[in-house]
Amino acid sequence: METKITSKFIAELIGTFGLVLFGCGAAAIAGGDTLVGTSGLGLLGISLAFGLSVVVFAYAIGSVSGCHINPAVTIGVLVSGRITFRDALVYIAAQFIGAILGAFVLKTILMGQLAGFQQGEWAFGSNGWGAGYQSEYGMVTAFITEAILTAIFLFVILGTTSKIGNGTMAGLAIGLTLVLIHMVAIPITGTSVNPARSLGPAIFAGGNAIAQVWLFLVAPIVGAVIGAILWRMVYADPKTA
Amino acid sequence: METKITSKFIAELIGTFGLVLFGCGAAAIAGGDTLVGTSGLGLLGISLAFGLSVVVFAYAIGSVSGCHINPAVTIGVLVSGRITFRDALVYIAAQFIGAILGAFVLKTILMGQLAGFQQGEWAFGSNGWGAGYQSEYGMVTAFITEAILTAIFLFVILGTTSKIGNGTMAGLAIGLTLVLIHMVAIPITGTSVNPARSLGPAIFAGGNAIAQVWLFLVAPIVGAVIGAILWRMVYADPKTA
Amino acid sequence: METKITSKFIAELIGTFGLVLFGCGAAAIAGGDTLVGTSGLGLLGISLAFGLSVVVFAYAIGSVSGCHINPAVTIGVLVSGRITFRDALVYIAAQFIGAILGAFVLKTILMGQLAGFQQGEWAFGSNGWGAGYQSEYGMVTAFITEAILTAIFLFVILGTTSKIGNGTMAGLAIGLTLVLIHMVAIPITGTSVNPARSLGPAIFAGGNAIAQVWLFLVAPIVGAVIGAILWRMVYADPKTA
Amino acid sequence: METKITSKFIAELIGTFGLVLFGCGAAAIAGGDTLVGTSGLGLLGISLAFGLSVVVFAYAIGSVSGCHINPAVTIGVLVSGRITFRDALVYIAAQFIGAILGAFVLKTILMGQLAGFQQGEWAFGSNGWGAGYQSEYGMVTAFITEAILTAIFLFVILGTTSKIGNGTMAGLAIGLTLVLIHMVAIPITGTSVNPARSLGPAIFAGGNAIAQVWLFLVAPIVGAVIGAILWRMVYADPKTA
Repeated sequence: METKITSKFIAELIGTFGLVLFGCGAAAIAGGDTLVGTSGLGLLGISLAFGLSVVVFAYAIGSVSGCHINPAVTIGVLVSGRITFRDALVYIAAQFIGAILGAFVLKTILMGQLAGFQQGEWAFGSNGWGAGYQSEYGMVTAFITEAILTAIFLFVILGTTSKIGNGTMAGLAIGLTLVLIHMVAIPITGTSVNPARSLGPAIFAGGNAIAQVWLFLVAPIVGAVIGAILWRMVYADPKTA
Repeated sequence: METKITSKFIAELIGTFGLVLFGCGAAAIAGGDTLVGTSGLGLLGISLAFGLSVVVFAYAIGSVSGCHINPAVTIGVLVSGRITFRDALVYIAAQFIGAILGAFVLKTILMGQLAGFQQGEWAFGSNGWGAGYQSEYGMVTAFITEAILTAIFLFVILGTTSKIGNGTMAGLAIGLTLVLIHMVAIPITGTSVNPARSLGPAIFAGGNAIAQVWLFLVAPIVGAVIGAILWRMVYADPKTA
Repeated sequence: METKITSKFIAELIGTFGLVLFGCGAAAIAGGDTLVGTSGLGLLGISLAFGLSVVVFAYAIGSVSGCHINPAVTIGVLVSGRITFRDALVYIAAQFIGAILGAFVLKTILMGQLAGFQQGEWAFGSNGWGAGYQSEYGMVTAFITEAILTAIFLFVILGTTSKIGNGTMAGLAIGLTLVLIHMVAIPITGTSVNPARSLGPAIFAGGNAIAQVWLFLVAPIVGAVIGAILWRMVYADPKTA
Repeated sequence: METKITSKFIAELIGTFGLVLFGCGAAAIAGGDTLVGTSGLGLLGISLAFGLSVVVFAYAIGSVSGCHINPAVTIGVLVSGRITFRDALVYIAAQFIGAILGAFVLKTILMGQLAGFQQGEWAFGSNGWGAGYQSEYGMVTAFITEAILTAIFLFVILGTTSKIGNGTMAGLAIGLTLVLIHMVAIPITGTSVNPARSLGPAIFAGGNAIAQVWLFLVAPIVGAVIGAILWRMVYADPKTA
């Protein structure tokens, strides 16, 4: 059933807000060990935080907006012909607003620590690359990694939501794909595959995070287009797509 | 099919009992490393313990009572008009009784350790904030965090169980949302979003746990009402809600 | 559709074999850190190994035998009137044979380590309690813990497989309940809730493992009966059960 | 609905590419702790990376090709009579090409580390055994372990996709079985149960990885045939199979 564009706008905004608050929040608030010595989330926990966010919003708003909560996904879906250009613009606007709002709330929470708030350059789960960032990979590798992983992401999204796909499990499979993407790419770029998720934290982190954010706006979109093409190759028969 | 209120009462009692025993039990019994050097559950394991408890009881008692096992959820559902005021009172009574019983059993088990039982102020997985608690966040931040996360929780609960939601996956999505909420908020408040889950352990822990429990009775309810309003904004069309 | 008892026998045997090989194997082979310094599975990984084993066999043999792979489950199902006494005996025989076979294969694999094989008293993922075992809890606590957790386990099993339950998700919910049970009880008893899973490793471990195995034959059965009674209280209406 | 063999070829190629990139990538890029001190994926994370890859591709390409992405699976399915010999050859070719491509991309990414690239003998998540590999198990144990675990894998695959199986959950159950297999066998062989997944990295790693790759071509196939036989024993009635 078709829902109104305002419902879709609010749904995409809340979903992207939640993705940034849960994903970047897990990394910034709970990624490392706690003061009382309990093991922090680590790479596995942070990967699950981003991916499971997509799972839960897929089922909470999927039937309203399709739960893109990612401009690269919206562009991939646009290339595959499943959304209008006008709706895509509305979605992307909602996603950027939601992500910026999520990063703002995250910053507000972090500033509530009694010991005071030390803002690192890559704070709030910002993405990046190069010397001083995670495992220190170069820019070309960062770009290739983001593009390839976004291509696989879109391939899974479009495949699981195809006519012959399994509608019940699609949301779970898509979110778990984002878990896998983070498992591989956190040491390289912190993992974006999502321009909105990168821009939100970068605005508040400044420094390298904002200087390098262009890559996370461009590479995921390149990857999304490649993913849509791969999907079309496999789902060439219109009866399956 | 409508079931009797006594069945619902027992179901909510058992579910909340299980949530406290599994969630707080995982934190108190298995959160840290073991004597024999095996890595404890850490923040990820504790988060999963709370969230997966909701998943399993959602499928075990969901068709009987809807598996609220949380007074904030019941109040959010009441605001959305899906439960009567009388039933809501019965649910909330069952939840508090179940949670207190769960905390009592947990205390009994912990007292069975041969080395004797050292009750810390925040024992039994109690919630709190401020100096000496987890990563030491302030009270206002604790309140905001609990309210916002409960709002997202209710939004997902009401969305996934809407007419156009996916009934099969709703329980999984709702429980995974609680996993995400814990991943972000354990270092801040230990994560409540559930007045019953907070009161149970606080009664036996005493000290700061009981002195600060008011926040975990109030903030989740504020958040639940906000979540119900957000849900109504997205699911404005009665055919979808 | 009813399948032959020989098919059910082989299915239960293979399932229980797999449960012991995966669960106890994960604990014994991969629980601790590796020689090359990679973090071992820890309590979370071991908990998942046991619980996910139930998930996968629930879907692989559930439509053949119901996937009990646990004598306590079979007795709980017998009490609830869903299996004949004759079939229950066949199931239990298959479960003990499968568990012993699984423990034998696990021992064989462990003996293949080049550095030679040091059999500890609690080797092969054996259960136990008291001084020198895990976090050193007493016998009464061990008994109570095993009984209560098995009661919850049976309550979830019978609830999710009730007429008004969700057949698609039942296997997942049941297995995740076993994950939760392990998250709480590994430091106390190593977690049994399953007489066959305890007897298999105990036979090869000897020592305290075999001397204390009686508790893991008795307590889970007591708990299973309690769980069946709790389930009947909630699912009192025959139209729901 | 039957899809064209070219679609199946591309689907199997992409799926096996993804399995190697995610699984071996997680191990090689993110298995250990990061430079900034965040806990790496460890054995649990690496196990999830391989297994969840199968889950996501099961839903992305399952309705196109059945998502074997593993020559041993294709051979087991061939023995069970569900695929033609000609199609099996196409599948296996696609799987080896995809795995080699995945390992090539992984090597390319790893070479992008600013500190330069140190290729160990077992690099890129290669499989092996003996002195210097993981927990140092012998060759016979490695063979037995791979064969038995592949047998269980095929038993679950054929069982969950049988007529009386649960089509919705099959992909999840199959992938979680691969998680369990890795949880047990990483310290022994690094876990293959998949000739393509082993050959890909071995080609680029050289040394012992390529010298020992024969075992990972042979043992999984032996196990797959055993698994198909076990499945036939349980699913003897054609109405269930």
